[in-house]
Amino acid sequence: MKKLINKPEDFIRESLQGMAAAHSDLIKVHYDPAFVYRADAPVQGKVAIISGGGSGHEPMHPGFVGMGMLDAACPGEVFTSPTPDQMLEAAKRVDGGAGILYIVKNYSGDVMNFEMATELARSEGIRVLSILIDDDVAVKDSLYTQGRRGVGTTVLAEKICGAAAQQGYDLQQIASLCRRVNLNGRSLGMALTSCIVPAKGTPTFELGNQEIEMGIGIHGEPGRDRTTIKSADEITQTLTLSIIEDAPYSRTLREWDEEKGEWVDVELIDPAFENGDKLLAFVNSMGGTPISELYVVYRKLAEICEQKGLQIVRNLIGPYITSLDMQGCSITLLKLDDEIIRLWDAPVKTPSLRWGV
Amino acid sequence: MKKLINKPEDFIRESLQGMAAAHSDLIKVHYDPAFVYRADAPVQGKVAIISGGGSGHEPMHPGFVGMGMLDAACPGEVFTSPTPDQMLEAAKRVDGGAGILYIVKNYSGDVMNFEMATELARSEGIRVLSILIDDDVAVKDSLYTQGRRGVGTTVLAEKICGAAAQQGYDLQQIASLCRRVNLNGRSLGMALTSCIVPAKGTPTFELGNQEIEMGIGIHGEPGRDRTTIKSADEITQTLTLSIIEDAPYSRTLREWDEEKGEWVDVELIDPAFENGDKLLAFVNSMGGTPISELYVVYRKLAEICEQKGLQIVRNLIGPYITSLDMQGCSITLLKLDDEIIRLWDAPVKTPSLRWGV
Repeated sequence: MKKLINKPEDFIRESLQGMAAAHSDLIKVHYDPAFVYRADAPVQGKVAIISGGGSGHEPMHPGFVGMGMLDAACPGEVFTSPTPDQMLEAAKRVDGGAGILYIVKNYSGDVMNFEMATELARSEGIRVLSILIDDDVAVKDSLYTQGRRGVGTTVLAEKICGAAAQQGYDLQQIASLCRRVNLNGRSLGMALTSCIVPAKGTPTFELGNQEIEMGIGIHGEPGRDRTTIKSADEITQTLTLSIIEDAPYSRTLREWDEEKGEWVDVELIDPAFENGDKLLAFVNSMGGTPISELYVVYRKLAEICEQKGLQIVRNLIGPYITSLDMQGCSITLLKLDDEIIRLWDAPVKTPSLRWGV
Repeated sequence: MKKLINKPEDFIRESLQGMAAAHSDLIKVHYDPAFVYRADAPVQGKVAIISGGGSGHEPMHPGFVGMGMLDAACPGEVFTSPTPDQMLEAAKRVDGGAGILYIVKNYSGDVMNFEMATELARSEGIRVLSILIDDDVAVKDSLYTQGRRGVGTTVLAEKICGAAAQQGYDLQQIASLCRRVNLNGRSLGMALTSCIVPAKGTPTFELGNQEIEMGIGIHGEPGRDRTTIKSADEITQTLTLSIIEDAPYSRTLREWDEEKGEWVDVELIDPAFENGDKLLAFVNSMGGTPISELYVVYRKLAEICEQKGLQIVRNLIGPYITSLDMQGCSITLLKLDDEIIRLWDAPVKTPSLRWGV
């Protein structure tokens, strides 16, 4: 294994130490338990947005902590859910009295631990809601997941909800907004290569010299199918059409009902994309694929969207939700409305996403 | 070869088409000859900054075209110098009447072609100066280069000179500033893996499973030495000390003398770093190394600088001058003064570097 690390067991802590040293104007890091938080937290009267999950997907989530995005991020070990005490301590540290929204990717470990953290925080008098992101159209049920996995839409939800919090939306409004972003976002990824988890030292899965995996998970978990390598245009077409042509998707997710004071099952339906929709198109590197190749993908994606009557009015292109050094890409399409566009455009100042300030 | 491309010979053009589609608010692309230019060019009365070089180092240079940075970038084929007609046509397109500064990395092909372009532009009545960047302390003379190679400082010079142009500096002032940035900047890189040039389809050089190359060039050209893989801290220490302890460096570069109307040899000396210097620290991914590892490098870099009495007051961390999918990193240290800090902090709005607006 060749990586720029010291001991594998120190990798995440040392990476966070580097972040803290580099961005002390924006973030601070608490180490035991581990969470990254806004340097100016708590912001009194503002809803705080917290996310987290296994490490190895950087810059998501720690790179998105700062003004207009996350108040805190809880990093687990590589590809391993963070623990409820990380989420609880982060909540206590950034609570500004207006409540906390946990944004949670739909992996069984994350879901369970964030539910526990939600109850622990509530028992300490902190108001908490949590919203699940399950936007990956690749597979239903998978290693680590019941239902669809949470991937690229998470990045977009963190930006959009962070802007809403910054603008004074209340907790219910932001939870509702986050749910809407999740329902309107769909993703699909693919791998050219595996990734290597430092503690293991060998590739997570084997891909032949001419093989690629379509529908890959961000932890290297199996996707839809393996094929021989195809052209960028063919790969982009498969990814894009799978997203665009995905039928309305109905499932039940558990959410906390504040009025009833209990967990309830909520039936939620992702609408299908329709001619005339305005979209944000997000072309993401899995970590090892350079931006020059992402633009080749974007070129074909834009062409297909235009043919289908879908209008891309915003985009994000780069490595934002990665799988360590994996080569490959994912595409996320998010249906926009005027409110979401306004929140997307709002200023943001984090280590890895910044504009307007 | 597994990459997100179509035909290798279409890679650069299709990547530029994707960029143009994604960032039509910021840039436009001219295809024959190929150059990327500011969507609002020419900006009347402003000095225009143009750079260029072989492709494969993205986002440098096309990703740095926009307000507060480059007016145009001339991309050659992968790792191949652009031609004088690209540079000439770019100059004609973006000239706002206040002259052009070419920022040129010190590779023999680039130097020769930019000199020819300088003369062609001048013969068409456009005032042009050019400044060479030669900041790589790895080796003296190398494949493609006489003297030191131009690497990471180029990115910083483009930002700083772009801000100066935006603020109304005249051509001589900006050329002088660019020269100062070059003299105050030093870099060194290393490779964990080779890169694969699409037209070739196989690795540019062979590195064993446990081998790394210190002092690698951005085209995969040989560095200082090959060693077995070491810890991130050891690698960072070698890179950092080689930069910090580099003696004053004297060499002769060719520059156009406007008063004499001829090329003259100018003796230039890089001063050594000194206790108390304020620095910008730039930790760069060679393309395939994720940001989590760059922070491990930054952590040690910051520690060494502190021990040496060097104060890091600005930083840049991410993939900015890459070698396709190569894994590895480079470190650039730039000695700052108040004027350069002010210009670094000034607003910039390009596809790949943006803040303050």
